[in-house]
Amino acid sequence: MSEFDDIARLFRPLAFGAPEALNLQDDAAVIPSRPGYDLVVTKDAIVGGVHFLPGDTPADIARKLLRVNLSDLAAKAAEPYAVFLAVAWPADIGEGARETFAAGLAEDLQMFGLVLLGGDTVSTPGPLTASLTALGWVEAGRMVRRATARPGDRLFVSGTIGGGGLGLQAAQGGLSELSSSDRLRLMKRYRLPEPRLDLRAALLAHATASADVSDGFLADAGHIGEASGVGLEVGLERLPLSPPVRAWLGAQPDQAAARVWLASAGDDYEVVCAARPEAAAALAQAGFSEIGRVVEGEGVSATFHGQSVDVRRKGWTHT
Amino acid sequence: MSEFDDIARLFRPLAFGAPEALNLQDDAAVIPSRPGYDLVVTKDAIVGGVHFLPGDTPADIARKLLRVNLSDLAAKAAEPYAVFLAVAWPADIGEGARETFAAGLAEDLQMFGLVLLGGDTVSTPGPLTASLTALGWVEAGRMVRRATARPGDRLFVSGTIGGGGLGLQAAQGGLSELSSSDRLRLMKRYRLPEPRLDLRAALLAHATASADVSDGFLADAGHIGEASGVGLEVGLERLPLSPPVRAWLGAQPDQAAARVWLASAGDDYEVVCAARPEAAAALAQAGFSEIGRVVEGEGVSATFHGQSVDVRRKGWTHT
Repeated sequence: MSEFDDIARLFRPLAFGAPEALNLQDDAAVIPSRPGYDLVVTKDAIVGGVHFLPGDTPADIARKLLRVNLSDLAAKAAEPYAVFLAVAWPADIGEGARETFAAGLAEDLQMFGLVLLGGDTVSTPGPLTASLTALGWVEAGRMVRRATARPGDRLFVSGTIGGGGLGLQAAQGGLSELSSSDRLRLMKRYRLPEPRLDLRAALLAHATASADVSDGFLADAGHIGEASGVGLEVGLERLPLSPPVRAWLGAQPDQAAARVWLASAGDDYEVVCAARPEAAAALAQAGFSEIGRVVEGEGVSATFHGQSVDVRRKGWTHT
Repeated sequence: MSEFDDIARLFRPLAFGAPEALNLQDDAAVIPSRPGYDLVVTKDAIVGGVHFLPGDTPADIARKLLRVNLSDLAAKAAEPYAVFLAVAWPADIGEGARETFAAGLAEDLQMFGLVLLGGDTVSTPGPLTASLTALGWVEAGRMVRRATARPGDRLFVSGTIGGGGLGLQAAQGGLSELSSSDRLRLMKRYRLPEPRLDLRAALLAHATASADVSDGFLADAGHIGEASGVGLEVGLERLPLSPPVRAWLGAQPDQAAARVWLASAGDDYEVVCAARPEAAAALAQAGFSEIGRVVEGEGVSATFHGQSVDVRRKGWTHT
């Protein structure tokens, strides 16, 4: 099975006939300029044994790789457009697994209205490794950046936080104290995140700065603070939580430390943004929760019902 | 050493202050549209133990990864603009090796006038693995494709052929019959190819179709034929050869078979193109050799001084 067979059989259909892909038969893709728009580009990689679990199917791996990249575009208020894929197949991967990988990617590309424009397939003596370059469009000059939060802004986060990190614990066989339906919901969230592309209009209209929540809410909020040269104050009692996360939290001895853990776990793929206080109602309508504020200074400080909490103490298992 | 330290310390300088990179502090890069130009995008990956040798330095690996991508842009007559890098560091790589990788990339980015706009660094239990996404600009509608060769065109190839493949043999300890200076020249060609960005004006002016020579001259010419729906006739006696390759060829018992091997070995990173017969003088001036012609039909057929040669018999070691 040569690289050319793989590309022709597995990946050419994923161009969905886009002329820019040149049928995946050329050295490169060619993307016409779109006057009035900027191209937003992000690139993430995943590695077997590091970023996914032995039980993840090849389809899940491909779909998660796509979704983590789309999460970056979502946070930038960009409209996803196309992707490039490089994949290194391990020696022991079979034809069926390669087909499943391509089928998973095809399913999600179609769901999100994207096309594959090019890339590379190689072999590796190591684990399955893949990188995706995702391209999106945004009206010229309108991309929402990390570096543009201002003191006086409020801090908001979309959806719920902590489910990704608990989902990883569940997928690794932990959280046996939870019901099996809660464990399944958390695992599904970890394995197949939902990029928040639905927030685009709200971010364009209201956000002064934003980032996606992939490394953990506190870390990613901190990235906004660092890039913007501002400090952030977070009220951990406002952390939005899903029912399974609430069920877990109810059994924790130290509520403040457990919330720091939830706010430090990764893989939520929500969006954290700053906005003027008067945008609060519109952002709430769009699914954001207000969780803090932007201040002069630097760093992230947190409180829990008014009591200061050390956010560097991230390990609830060690408290 | 976290991902953020790596990015800040090793890779941020490689943006050379480009505003599109947003200081490598954001979720994505933002590329303004360039009216009147198309964006040409290519993406290649390399894996330790597959695409580079144990003796290759991290600097050489980074530079070769960049150059094989630039070779694709060169064949498309695109002006290189920017790159995105994803790199998976193996567990045993030291800080010095990571710095050397970044320094090699920095050296070549600067030499070719490029900027790093983003990417990802991760860890891997496998070998060093990296993918590069390279972006270039070309005047709107002017990218030279593979699928546009026409019967009646002539076939041309730039530079010399076979040195990459022999360089790999030399780097693996072979070719002891050659002088050490010839072996060194071949190895250098293999380790650090020169993308033919100097051919841009000639390709734009004259080429009807083109591809880079990475998989082997006959294979890459064949890609043009296949994409264009035409056949190709190649005269192997016209294969342009460098002095070390001539020295090797002089000692081969079967000249036709040896030339098939040279024309089938990869890693030359030259450009094969089709053009109208009247462009021959201008293309010769630009460094191309005329080597055959485009005909009705399909497939690549070859002759050596008028005698038909089976190009499927690629292994000179087996003759």
